[in-house]
Amino acid sequence: MATLLLKPGQDVTPQAVEPASPVALFGPDEPLPMDAGGALAPWQIAYQTAGTLNAARSNAVLICHALTGDQHFAHRHPVTGKPGWWESLVGPGLPVDTDRYFVICANVLGSCMGTTGPASANPETGRAYGLDFPLVTIRDMVRAQGRLLDRLGIPDLFLCIGGSMGGMQVLQWAASFPDRVFAAMPIATGPRHSAQNIAFHEVGRQAVMADPDWHGGRYLEAGTRPAKGLAVARMGAHVTYLSEMALHRKFGRRLQNRDERTFSFDADFQIESYLRHQGSTFVERFDANAYLYLTRAMDYFDLAADHGGVLANAFRGTRTRFCVISFTSDWLFPTAESRAVVHALNATAAPVAFVEIESDKGHDAFLLDEPAMVSAARGFIAAAARERGL
Amino acid sequence: MATLLLKPGQDVTPQAVEPASPVALFGPDEPLPMDAGGALAPWQIAYQTAGTLNAARSNAVLICHALTGDQHFAHRHPVTGKPGWWESLVGPGLPVDTDRYFVICANVLGSCMGTTGPASANPETGRAYGLDFPLVTIRDMVRAQGRLLDRLGIPDLFLCIGGSMGGMQVLQWAASFPDRVFAAMPIATGPRHSAQNIAFHEVGRQAVMADPDWHGGRYLEAGTRPAKGLAVARMGAHVTYLSEMALHRKFGRRLQNRDERTFSFDADFQIESYLRHQGSTFVERFDANAYLYLTRAMDYFDLAADHGGVLANAFRGTRTRFCVISFTSDWLFPTAESRAVVHALNATAAPVAFVEIESDKGHDAFLLDEPAMVSAARGFIAAAARERGL
Repeated sequence: MATLLLKPGQDVTPQAVEPASPVALFGPDEPLPMDAGGALAPWQIAYQTAGTLNAARSNAVLICHALTGDQHFAHRHPVTGKPGWWESLVGPGLPVDTDRYFVICANVLGSCMGTTGPASANPETGRAYGLDFPLVTIRDMVRAQGRLLDRLGIPDLFLCIGGSMGGMQVLQWAASFPDRVFAAMPIATGPRHSAQNIAFHEVGRQAVMADPDWHGGRYLEAGTRPAKGLAVARMGAHVTYLSEMALHRKFGRRLQNRDERTFSFDADFQIESYLRHQGSTFVERFDANAYLYLTRAMDYFDLAADHGGVLANAFRGTRTRFCVISFTSDWLFPTAESRAVVHALNATAAPVAFVEIESDKGHDAFLLDEPAMVSAARGFIAAAARERGL
Repeated sequence: MATLLLKPGQDVTPQAVEPASPVALFGPDEPLPMDAGGALAPWQIAYQTAGTLNAARSNAVLICHALTGDQHFAHRHPVTGKPGWWESLVGPGLPVDTDRYFVICANVLGSCMGTTGPASANPETGRAYGLDFPLVTIRDMVRAQGRLLDRLGIPDLFLCIGGSMGGMQVLQWAASFPDRVFAAMPIATGPRHSAQNIAFHEVGRQAVMADPDWHGGRYLEAGTRPAKGLAVARMGAHVTYLSEMALHRKFGRRLQNRDERTFSFDADFQIESYLRHQGSTFVERFDANAYLYLTRAMDYFDLAADHGGVLANAFRGTRTRFCVISFTSDWLFPTAESRAVVHALNATAAPVAFVEIESDKGHDAFLLDEPAMVSAARGFIAAAARERGL
């Protein structure tokens, strides 16, 4: 009864495209209610774990991944062959210590790495959902993760941690399941998506939709992929993940393999070549419709609006302890956004630590080996573990 | 002998598409040397003027327009029907006073409003140049403007003024023609294009080139236009022209014509609808290849690199007086870029005023009715006029 992820030209056969990950299947009798209305059934969620759940089931850590991330936080990626995306923070002896905690990361609802999304087969038609897939919200993602924890027999989380869209999920976890989160670390995120961020996402979506190979979202049946449009979307987004300083230091105006300008539209500058590479490698591992859905989920995120316009209401009565982290050069989620979360938590008298980290690496700093972030995480998590008696 | 601008399906007939503007024609015996090598011939430059040249020919002002601007600085636009783009600064009684000065603005080389560019007919083939048009630099644009002034019998400029790419031209004027610029006002610009700016331009170019209707640049012969790709490019660029604050104030997360999210990919948010409108109106008035060429010209601009790596060398011995203006919320050309110009001018002991204007309107502030900019321009220009004896 598992939903399937379809590739162009692929028949609807009961074969998972993500054999590397365990998958929790939820049948027609276990529908997932969706914020857009109705419910999704059947559905499935793919995940990875590291470490061991203790007898008290009190040492579970949920990692929430970002927009184009996935569950391979500490394992070689089955498509790209790259190391896990958070090996700077998660592993034996690291702040999220896989020798001490049972660490879970699930591919978010609407994505394309084994969890049900727009590339999955619609049971009503046998074809890929495409745009018939219901719009997904951050709250839907968190609801699905909650069902996964139920399935795994995990009553509550010792720690919920994530950056960017992952951080939105962390905030939503604290709001949706106040009794199931002992400690929360939202990083490089905010309580809502800003107008500028919506604008950049909309440009990316329009780039995908402008590609005739997108076919109104039915490209899998057409045997195509909107690779060019998705690559453009990725290139544009990638610029926003860095900072002017990072780009200047990394590339500046340096020319590519040449001493002279070519006076052409070749990738003269190293930054151009880098961006083209970012675009072309991304399309090999990501589904275009999933990109549309997940950017939309971020755009829709507005925790205050969901709670009567008062952000503090989202956390009223919380017993979760928080560590909020921002980076000085992150212009996608500037410190002011984190500060808004901190102020809301202060208003509810929740225990909250706030660390603004001096970094010139932009938004993507949360994915990098930023010593100040690693050390803040180490301190906060160790203290929370002591409080939890771990 | 005029080169022609071709529209899709249009025959090569001696008919200008910009009947609203005077055009200076340069025949096969008057080639324009190009930085890319070789020379352009024949070529033409379309321009607009306001005011009257005095008997001493000493009151000429050259306005340099930005990337997607044109010569219609103070006249109704023949395509869009909109008022002149700099009517906040230029007109009777305004700082650039058309009652006192003879004001000229020419469509830049490589553009598409009457001056020779990639949509012009290549005399060797009778077809539009397309990508056979030589790459254009800011210095080429300025060289062409110099030839126009020669033609008009204007020995030198009282004032050269412009914002963004127009500001680059102003700086290049001071460097290329140190004896022909009495006063210079580069606004919201810099001495070179940053890595981040090159990156955003490259994303836009890739969006155009990804559109199958671009046809490798030969879309006019194919009877198409890469409208979708160009619209995406414009949408992305437009976000960079504003500021997060401006977007937040203007749009925030307000929904479009609805109280509720539609849970679809419709333009739910006002910012989305606004951007789509920006994209679709732009493609009606602008040539896609011209967009490629002009973005490339900005990317290539590096005044220091052209002068042995030392920016001050570009202005060595200058007698021009400068007024450099930046805006606090301009993240495309942040104040640091203007400051680099000011420091270089200081190093040459040139007279220079520097005004950083507090504004939350982003890069596009230079196009708006910013009282502080208008007043700075009024003071600087009036003082320069007194020095010039005007």
